[in-house]
Amino acid sequence: MTRIAIIGAAGYTALELIKILLRHPDADIVAVTDLQEGQPHIAAIHPSLTGRLDIFVEKLSPAEVAARADCVFACLPHGVSSSLVPDLLDGDTRVVDFSADYRLNDPEVFATWYGQKHPDPERVGKVVYGMPELFRDQIREAPLVANPGCYPTSAILPLAPLLKAGLIEPNGIIVDAKSGVSGAGRSPKMVAHFPECNESISAYNVGRHRHTPEIDQILSTVAGARVEVVFTPHLVPMDRGILATTYSAPKGDVSEERVLQTLRDFYADEPFVQVVDHLPGTKDTANTNYCHITARVVRGRVVTISCLDNLVRGASGAAVQNFNLMYGYPETTAM
Amino acid sequence: MTRIAIIGAAGYTALELIKILLRHPDADIVAVTDLQEGQPHIAAIHPSLTGRLDIFVEKLSPAEVAARADCVFACLPHGVSSSLVPDLLDGDTRVVDFSADYRLNDPEVFATWYGQKHPDPERVGKVVYGMPELFRDQIREAPLVANPGCYPTSAILPLAPLLKAGLIEPNGIIVDAKSGVSGAGRSPKMVAHFPECNESISAYNVGRHRHTPEIDQILSTVAGARVEVVFTPHLVPMDRGILATTYSAPKGDVSEERVLQTLRDFYADEPFVQVVDHLPGTKDTANTNYCHITARVVRGRVVTISCLDNLVRGASGAAVQNFNLMYGYPETTAM
Amino acid sequence: MTRIAIIGAAGYTALELIKILLRHPDADIVAVTDLQEGQPHIAAIHPSLTGRLDIFVEKLSPAEVAARADCVFACLPHGVSSSLVPDLLDGDTRVVDFSADYRLNDPEVFATWYGQKHPDPERVGKVVYGMPELFRDQIREAPLVANPGCYPTSAILPLAPLLKAGLIEPNGIIVDAKSGVSGAGRSPKMVAHFPECNESISAYNVGRHRHTPEIDQILSTVAGARVEVVFTPHLVPMDRGILATTYSAPKGDVSEERVLQTLRDFYADEPFVQVVDHLPGTKDTANTNYCHITARVVRGRVVTISCLDNLVRGASGAAVQNFNLMYGYPETTAM
Amino acid sequence: MTRIAIIGAAGYTALELIKILLRHPDADIVAVTDLQEGQPHIAAIHPSLTGRLDIFVEKLSPAEVAARADCVFACLPHGVSSSLVPDLLDGDTRVVDFSADYRLNDPEVFATWYGQKHPDPERVGKVVYGMPELFRDQIREAPLVANPGCYPTSAILPLAPLLKAGLIEPNGIIVDAKSGVSGAGRSPKMVAHFPECNESISAYNVGRHRHTPEIDQILSTVAGARVEVVFTPHLVPMDRGILATTYSAPKGDVSEERVLQTLRDFYADEPFVQVVDHLPGTKDTANTNYCHITARVVRGRVVTISCLDNLVRGASGAAVQNFNLMYGYPETTAM
Repeated sequence: MTRIAIIGAAGYTALELIKILLRHPDADIVAVTDLQEGQPHIAAIHPSLTGRLDIFVEKLSPAEVAARADCVFACLPHGVSSSLVPDLLDGDTRVVDFSADYRLNDPEVFATWYGQKHPDPERVGKVVYGMPELFRDQIREAPLVANPGCYPTSAILPLAPLLKAGLIEPNGIIVDAKSGVSGAGRSPKMVAHFPECNESISAYNVGRHRHTPEIDQILSTVAGARVEVVFTPHLVPMDRGILATTYSAPKGDVSEERVLQTLRDFYADEPFVQVVDHLPGTKDTANTNYCHITARVVRGRVVTISCLDNLVRGASGAAVQNFNLMYGYPETTAM
Repeated sequence: MTRIAIIGAAGYTALELIKILLRHPDADIVAVTDLQEGQPHIAAIHPSLTGRLDIFVEKLSPAEVAARADCVFACLPHGVSSSLVPDLLDGDTRVVDFSADYRLNDPEVFATWYGQKHPDPERVGKVVYGMPELFRDQIREAPLVANPGCYPTSAILPLAPLLKAGLIEPNGIIVDAKSGVSGAGRSPKMVAHFPECNESISAYNVGRHRHTPEIDQILSTVAGARVEVVFTPHLVPMDRGILATTYSAPKGDVSEERVLQTLRDFYADEPFVQVVDHLPGTKDTANTNYCHITARVVRGRVVTISCLDNLVRGASGAAVQNFNLMYGYPETTAM
Repeated sequence: MTRIAIIGAAGYTALELIKILLRHPDADIVAVTDLQEGQPHIAAIHPSLTGRLDIFVEKLSPAEVAARADCVFACLPHGVSSSLVPDLLDGDTRVVDFSADYRLNDPEVFATWYGQKHPDPERVGKVVYGMPELFRDQIREAPLVANPGCYPTSAILPLAPLLKAGLIEPNGIIVDAKSGVSGAGRSPKMVAHFPECNESISAYNVGRHRHTPEIDQILSTVAGARVEVVFTPHLVPMDRGILATTYSAPKGDVSEERVLQTLRDFYADEPFVQVVDHLPGTKDTANTNYCHITARVVRGRVVTISCLDNLVRGASGAAVQNFNLMYGYPETTAM
Repeated sequence: MTRIAIIGAAGYTALELIKILLRHPDADIVAVTDLQEGQPHIAAIHPSLTGRLDIFVEKLSPAEVAARADCVFACLPHGVSSSLVPDLLDGDTRVVDFSADYRLNDPEVFATWYGQKHPDPERVGKVVYGMPELFRDQIREAPLVANPGCYPTSAILPLAPLLKAGLIEPNGIIVDAKSGVSGAGRSPKMVAHFPECNESISAYNVGRHRHTPEIDQILSTVAGARVEVVFTPHLVPMDRGILATTYSAPKGDVSEERVLQTLRDFYADEPFVQVVDHLPGTKDTANTNYCHITARVVRGRVVTISCLDNLVRGASGAAVQNFNLMYGYPETTAM
């Protein structure tokens, strides 16, 4: 049994995490913290947990959390997470960090895209990126795992095998991605106000979305060449799900079947990536840790289509998969 | 040509009002006011008006508004409206008030349900309730019209003819109403946050909704007897529309056909009420000023079902219908 | 390990059932049948099962099913189920029947509401109604369980304790219920065509819905008096969930607190019914086997509000709860 | 006053067309035809027209239609339209054709993409493409106008000015488009079944959508060079609206401001195209004939974003705009 603390319990990823962990036979949620007034019961914040988890939300210092828990899931905004993680690690807990703080290898890139100095620059570049399909072995031993972003997961999973196999050019890759509204978080805001975003689709942060350097970095590593994607996120009127449509130039004459076979081979033994022949929809992966991928070659361009649940595979499901690896539980436990 | 000012231009009812008035050959929007910083163009607040209305939002005193406009549409919250209306009327404008301030006849009832003393108690009880089907003649001459609430319209239109005809008992009436989310207004809030309210239906303000005394008052007037409804509003994951299902006890043995015929007769000459045989859905009335009504008798209970667009028939469409009556334009102009 | 067959595998309840059973440590899905052409893989029918269940859909006779399986879940339309169940029971399997065929005690009532003679009239009236909160002991021993309808579950759970305790009058009860569109099944039809039902709410089958006699029967049994509800179902633009708002007359002077306490006491030991103080929404129970209930007293009328997931608590979750009881597994297993 | 007939009145584009024409002071709907059994009232097919249009749906031959009407709007599927149009034109009516039949200039291309021989090959190539922004003068005089497809309109409007000005390369253009479900038509089908497509986004007909050659043809004409786009349509869970995101290579060094200015200049006098600085959403154009366009330059790639209402600007609104041009009414009448 592993004792678990969740920091930042009021958001959607924390809720999703709790729902998954409640099915985990070896996970014991011993503390949930947040900045709420008072010490509300978790069900007062998340009514869907009524009768399912009997615990009160506390305000705790990193040291207090570390004293109680073996593993901490930090569901915090960027910039905040890295101000607490050092103390958590000092306290001998292991940490799965949901923020972007430890995903980028270069504090300068972080500063450029996130508009602030990195609070913990020395650790930057030494933290494993928590995508088991690419970094499973490092995750097993890691004290701290940088849980991937939702968009990057949807883009990296289809593109990495094709770059690794040299089937597509590393430059000029386009990622046109579409996300459900839960990606905007749980704080009410105009962009996620129902009468504003319902029955509407729009692009946002075109060319400026903070997940861009994360996609660049991982794909560059895999390709062994500089990758700079054109990334366009869109907001879709649905609760959850991301669909990423990518466009890239084949290296020479590459058939659709070869693209698909390369993907199938790469993910043959992966429990949570399914390469399919049909065109998948986000609903096929809703509430699961799966990513479904397919590909087409259209007029000399390689088109991949991938989908996943942004809260599960794009956040909390991936986090539990990483947790399972870190603590030696069967990788698919609870999912 | 009538010169029009709109006070409180940033909300959904103001937007809907502008869209309707843009089709009105005799309405000239000369001023729009709001509490925004600076003087933004109206299209900066409502992007759907880009290229359609070229005007800047101003901060104006009631006197300044009155100096420019013949008719003012006050799209303001309760309590605020009645603090401005007296000055507007003094300035010789006529006013269609969207708030609840002048709908109730008794300042004490207002104080009870709205939790504040009425700012303009002397005028209370002397203002016509802007429902043309019941009070058309008074509306024509009125300097000030209290535009009805959206829920009350959906409940009064089906019930008033049956009470007037003595077909149903005035006591024990149940109004189970369902509304789209635009009814919650344009300010972001948890209850209207997309990932909270999408894919969910819930009841709210059960037994405490402020539209209750308004329904009671009009139905009591019509029935000539005290009516106190049990009113349960629900929030439905859609932009607009209200469906009201009412349950009442027939007086003696009343057939379904007689109920329907009573409704048909009552609304025979009304341009915007349609009594239908089938079970209508809110989409049938979306973006229109129509109310569709039908009725059934089930196990000795009269059941009415009515639907309308909360922003049009429940607010801005009714307001323009009232405006047309007040200024002698054909009643259906612009709709 | 119990060997399980699912008959009628192409619909939404079967899909939901499979997802739940995949989490059940003692359930082994050995056969899935349907009337599809050929023998498609289950993932060709339900893409969300890709990589999760490796089985082909077959056409099998009841005898063939019985030879392979210990327990059969019959996800079939009314009238079809009862033509297969006798052979299944002869084959020594136990059956959880999702259809309405064995829910009513009187073949005449079945004929009246379902428009056909009952195919297996002798068994009618001897089958336990699969609602553990009311009939747990009989379920344990039953060879055949009639799994309750989704609407009846949403109405019976809040009303039964109040009728049993004599707090409300058995006559004049109103059930105003609202359901997501998955309740309409998986066959494309106009009423569930996205551009028709999206952004719209409507009532349907007013006074004629087939779940009416089921509600009447169970509530009459519990009340020890004839109950005939006025039942109005509505279609809400969301995938899943039912919210039932009921209105009934208190017997004498009954306080809100007493109503709530009666509900709390009745369900104190129940794993899947939660009596809450706040007004719950269907999303609180989405993808779970829970029913959330609250109550208010409004102007001398008892109002209950209950919600559940129509595919889980209203179908497949209840079925697995029944299965757990029948086979001696912990009642909450897999949920 | 122009007498109008609508052929194929049961679909969504016909409904939208009627709603627009009801606001047109010089349009008189004298006949609506369809293949319905009997002669239903139009409101029996479109309940939202109750009380708004009093006409019965008939089955009429082209000659009968031509005898009654001056102008025919043909809301028919491809292949059907061109089997009726010749007789209509012979009867001295003018025709706005909603199908794809007369959009392509080459019957071979039609045969390739639509899988059938063209029924009226001699007229092909001589019919004006009904996009006023490009072909206004020819539309005025045309006996027959080929009303553009919804996706092509969303792609051509942002790209044509840039190609014409030589700002972007004609080859390698990507059009990633997202449409609401009404684009799938009114016949119930699995892909538009609410519980299948709600809460999901998916790509469909990747590389094979029939609007591809239409986009190619118009852009090639404008560019004076062969254009072959990579076109990926997606289905979004909303009623109406298309957002098109295009990616193209600039010719040399082109600034974002120059791209925007080129678009602004091109559309300076157009009533229904708005070039905006912000990122527009489909809701900004819902229920209007407007197209909103913006552009960004991202990492050396020109990205345009455009949105419109697929039923209005993508079909019936454009048709009325064409009608206004053909008959000399002010171009924006009724919209």
